[in-house]
Amino acid sequence: MTKEPVVAILGATGAVGQEFIRLIEERKFPYSKLKLLASYRSAGKKMTVNGEEYTVEEAKPESFDGVDIGLFAGGSISKELGPEAAKRGCIVIDNSSTFRMDPNVPLVVPEVNPEDIAWHKGIIANPNCSTIIMLMALKPIHDLSPIKRIIVSTYQAVSGAGKEGIDELRDETEAYLKGEEMQPKILPSKSLPKHYPIAFNLIPQIDKFVEKDYTKEEMKMVNETHKMLHDDSIAITATTVRVPVFRSHAESVYVETADELTVDAVRKAIDAFPGAQVQDNPAEMEYPMPLFTSEKYDCYVGRIRKDLYNPKAINLWVSGDQIRKGAALNALQIAEYMLAHDMIH
Amino acid sequence: MTKEPVVAILGATGAVGQEFIRLIEERKFPYSKLKLLASYRSAGKKMTVNGEEYTVEEAKPESFDGVDIGLFAGGSISKELGPEAAKRGCIVIDNSSTFRMDPNVPLVVPEVNPEDIAWHKGIIANPNCSTIIMLMALKPIHDLSPIKRIIVSTYQAVSGAGKEGIDELRDETEAYLKGEEMQPKILPSKSLPKHYPIAFNLIPQIDKFVEKDYTKEEMKMVNETHKMLHDDSIAITATTVRVPVFRSHAESVYVETADELTVDAVRKAIDAFPGAQVQDNPAEMEYPMPLFTSEKYDCYVGRIRKDLYNPKAINLWVSGDQIRKGAALNALQIAEYMLAHDMIH
Repeated sequence: MTKEPVVAILGATGAVGQEFIRLIEERKFPYSKLKLLASYRSAGKKMTVNGEEYTVEEAKPESFDGVDIGLFAGGSISKELGPEAAKRGCIVIDNSSTFRMDPNVPLVVPEVNPEDIAWHKGIIANPNCSTIIMLMALKPIHDLSPIKRIIVSTYQAVSGAGKEGIDELRDETEAYLKGEEMQPKILPSKSLPKHYPIAFNLIPQIDKFVEKDYTKEEMKMVNETHKMLHDDSIAITATTVRVPVFRSHAESVYVETADELTVDAVRKAIDAFPGAQVQDNPAEMEYPMPLFTSEKYDCYVGRIRKDLYNPKAINLWVSGDQIRKGAALNALQIAEYMLAHDMIH
Repeated sequence: MTKEPVVAILGATGAVGQEFIRLIEERKFPYSKLKLLASYRSAGKKMTVNGEEYTVEEAKPESFDGVDIGLFAGGSISKELGPEAAKRGCIVIDNSSTFRMDPNVPLVVPEVNPEDIAWHKGIIANPNCSTIIMLMALKPIHDLSPIKRIIVSTYQAVSGAGKEGIDELRDETEAYLKGEEMQPKILPSKSLPKHYPIAFNLIPQIDKFVEKDYTKEEMKMVNETHKMLHDDSIAITATTVRVPVFRSHAESVYVETADELTVDAVRKAIDAFPGAQVQDNPAEMEYPMPLFTSEKYDCYVGRIRKDLYNPKAINLWVSGDQIRKGAALNALQIAEYMLAHDMIH
């Protein structure tokens, strides 16, 4: 497009919405006009973007008239407003899980499957955070030799439960250290009937249980990986666990490939992959840790080593910022890709 | 033995040593005389056991004259004093890693391989905490059908680094919440040249790197499992990670067996296994969490489910108290087993 796009952020006041604003400023994302939208509860709030003050408006279908790009932070509001915005010619980049497995909606990590952007019909889905971060480490391996099997255990930050999750970890930690009772209200998921403390604890449930005693989060890692790598035959098992970390996820991944790969070849491929960085030097005690991958754009990969028993398997450890590459950054990068490739008109 | 044994606790003032004392009181472990021993730095401290005050004595070879059972809390002191105590007729139950892989020393979890106690030559080794907790979930499965492959990712509490590790997590957490700088001095391991914060972080290194870019902790899980299950052919891969949890470990385990097993058969076998409890009801959001398995004797197993792609594989999640079953309790249970079977003379 010749002029700069009109951009709307839906859910501007939440953790991912605020990150959209920070990233638009940091990355100098171009816009001719910006609208901040949210549910009626947050309407009227004032927010500053690039030094200019905005009033958050209540999101309605008409809010998207004349909008070129809708950055949807996530949540149930996407289901109604996604199609309404798309109908009005707005390209929706949606961070909710609503449309991810819709065969008419591309599910995209720009470094992994940019080719899928082309066939969008108005809505492009942003994958689940844990899937994005895993694939940033695995796609370069898949390009060396097709992946046959993945066994992943996650260590997921509370930011995945939004601002409320972050506040809960802080509040519970303070209470615990004072010897007071912790009062969990959010985790493992606000909508579930029971809540457990996350401070100094681990919760081996993220999202609800859906099938065969796997959680929705675990099935997202299976199904979304299949969709983005265009290969439903990859055998994937996930165990997803919430840990008392604020905003970067980590994952322990066992990956089997069709051919035998050297650690050196894997390291080189990951390092050459945009958005991924190898941080892997055992002699110097270098490996990714979530405290230090927070607020970064890239995903960091370390502990890369051959399986001791299967010559076609590699074990690795990946960590990336859940709110950035796991959510807002990836969505914004989809928009940046489309602008760079003149895909927004 | 007809009279009650003379018992010595070596390293009485540390995290594991203090736990020996608590457990001796709780479990009414019999003794005719008790000695509390430690290095010269802790000698002279007063400690109370079963209402009686003891002065901690500096441990020397002669300290073990007339002692029937030596409960060694761990550390480098075991190397010298273990053989010295054994030479004096003391049965040493040692929590350090010194003798674990010695072919002349049985490595024992009483529920897993009690038969190995019989061939001891004065020293019996207590396995590494992460190995014990994993085997409490896996031995009942191994008894149903031989285990062929294990892929485990651990979530290990700071108590594994002793009292100093526990204090470090607390101090760092307080500093972080006050906005002050964290000053790591212990983790990942006191003897290593670099230290990283554990508060709100994960450290994918436990103990030093030893071979093929695996850590000593990871190789312990491989080698000790082989020794206790008497089967070196089991393909084991471990990724061991320190998490900001005080005293219970958790582990995400993928296990392949020779035959196809049903989840129901696995649940029944684990529940029937002494020292293990199934805590696994997705509909009621029941699964083991380290905050709640702390201070317990048993190891808790949940998230038991078939692998989605390999009918001969099961995924599960186990959690147990690192200081209790992972260390002091297991050692004391070895002594209890020997007393019950008249193996101490």
